[in-house]
Amino acid sequence: MTFNITILGSNSAIPTLKRNPTSQLINHNERLLLVDCAEGTQLQLRKFRIKMQRIHHIFISHLHGDHFFGLIGLISSMHLLGRIKELHIYGPPELKEILDLQLSVSQTELNYPLKFHPLEQEKKAVIYEDEKLSIETLPLNHRIPTCGFLFREKPGKRKIIRQKIKDLNIPAEKILEIKNGADFIDEEGNLHKNDSISTPPGESRTYAYCSDTSYFEPLIPMIKNVDLLYHEATFLHDKAEVAAEKFHATAKEAATIAKKANVKRLLIGHFSNRYDNPELLLDEAKEVFPSSELAMDGVTIEV
Amino acid sequence: MTFNITILGSNSAIPTLKRNPTSQLINHNERLLLVDCAEGTQLQLRKFRIKMQRIHHIFISHLHGDHFFGLIGLISSMHLLGRIKELHIYGPPELKEILDLQLSVSQTELNYPLKFHPLEQEKKAVIYEDEKLSIETLPLNHRIPTCGFLFREKPGKRKIIRQKIKDLNIPAEKILEIKNGADFIDEEGNLHKNDSISTPPGESRTYAYCSDTSYFEPLIPMIKNVDLLYHEATFLHDKAEVAAEKFHATAKEAATIAKKANVKRLLIGHFSNRYDNPELLLDEAKEVFPSSELAMDGVTIEV
Repeated sequence: MTFNITILGSNSAIPTLKRNPTSQLINHNERLLLVDCAEGTQLQLRKFRIKMQRIHHIFISHLHGDHFFGLIGLISSMHLLGRIKELHIYGPPELKEILDLQLSVSQTELNYPLKFHPLEQEKKAVIYEDEKLSIETLPLNHRIPTCGFLFREKPGKRKIIRQKIKDLNIPAEKILEIKNGADFIDEEGNLHKNDSISTPPGESRTYAYCSDTSYFEPLIPMIKNVDLLYHEATFLHDKAEVAAEKFHATAKEAATIAKKANVKRLLIGHFSNRYDNPELLLDEAKEVFPSSELAMDGVTIEV
Repeated sequence: MTFNITILGSNSAIPTLKRNPTSQLINHNERLLLVDCAEGTQLQLRKFRIKMQRIHHIFISHLHGDHFFGLIGLISSMHLLGRIKELHIYGPPELKEILDLQLSVSQTELNYPLKFHPLEQEKKAVIYEDEKLSIETLPLNHRIPTCGFLFREKPGKRKIIRQKIKDLNIPAEKILEIKNGADFIDEEGNLHKNDSISTPPGESRTYAYCSDTSYFEPLIPMIKNVDLLYHEATFLHDKAEVAAEKFHATAKEAATIAKKANVKRLLIGHFSNRYDNPELLLDEAKEVFPSSELAMDGVTIEV
């Protein structure tokens, strides 16, 4: 089942010709979810050939411009390009006010329903669920209320052992029950325990998105053992003081969180403009946590 | 004296990888003025190597997103990049509310003074003046209150004839008076009329920016004889009905306005996404008004 992340923007603060500010596209089982939406995100979607109308859920971590200034443009373009399908937006309550005001001054009545879901950034809560995925907020430590998002695959069904279907003459109508964990009684009345006729589902994968935040240890238990952690790494550690002042993290701090949370892989992004070459940040992160990668614009990472 | 227009966006409605929506940079005597500011304008400035901090005046024609969604991002980047010099914004009164709200939710206090000048779109009025240029609003006919802008150079001073300074022994302290139109009385008491000792100033150039608008004849007397007219040309004339419905103009209509207003040159822009090749629109305009040009992204046009 597809579960990957496409980086639409890896820069902090301001857009440059090489790196746009924060936005990510999560593809889970061909369901597209957008996380944050900096100015220019709609163009990044075009550039990386992702159909904007396939996005039905957008999650905004906080109301600094580099995480949401592109949202009103994306909403408008969806409208102008004839969207009729519902769009769900999850974000701080004030975001609705901002969107409403901009739609009202332009006398725009959207062709499609826009459902706004206000988030309480300071609370860990499940905010989204479908049959295959759930999403939780992760309270972060930033200058204004900010949350990350934990994408957690739901356990799939068990896999039936094909040979057993033949051997035990399992009828088609029993298959789903068995996949859901039921035992099976054959025609002769023999009980076959579920684990003798099926194998466990593949492991559920998890992705944690944590931006923006300072070095914040309370985050560690919330992201324990995740498969992939995106953690902001705005600065190199020689700027640790500046980072702390601005409620941002250094590459070393991101890696330390990854290590302490025992995650499988770390992805760093939200690079300050001062770094032309983010490899420096990657090197620093790898010293602490070797399984680190850069979240560069246009890159797709499998969870 | 420099007087040129750099096109930062030539598309209507939505940004594409080739054409950004509306924004233009006016360079008059090295004073940079920005007209409209679609999403992505700050990146266009970077792309065309224009220093954003040199802009001190921004004019917003109306509150459709493709003319202002990039403003808050530009304002924020100016702040983040350390601006301290005043920025003047001229636009519909609601624009201030939108900017204030977005700055307040992100708890941003700008490092520089932002002076907002509310415009009455439906009134022709001088809204800006410096020693060399004045700017007037041009009421247009669009779905929401919209105005264009007329940039009018102030007449320069008369040019003194060098030979006369020698011949008549004109003292230095009289030069400025003569340049301003004064006659001169020489040592022997003879009167020399101003036009016998000086020549008229170079002609004052004018640029009219008219977007967005339907075909709107009341505009004609307001832009009579201008040197350069930018007029939107969203559609080809086979879409004249759609254009009228949407309060937009066709290339033929733009050219008709240019012709009736006896302007020197016409610049068309605000092209609908449906036209991959705006040359079609240019051909249509040229049939009515041969001195027509395309306002393509990145092009600089001398007034």
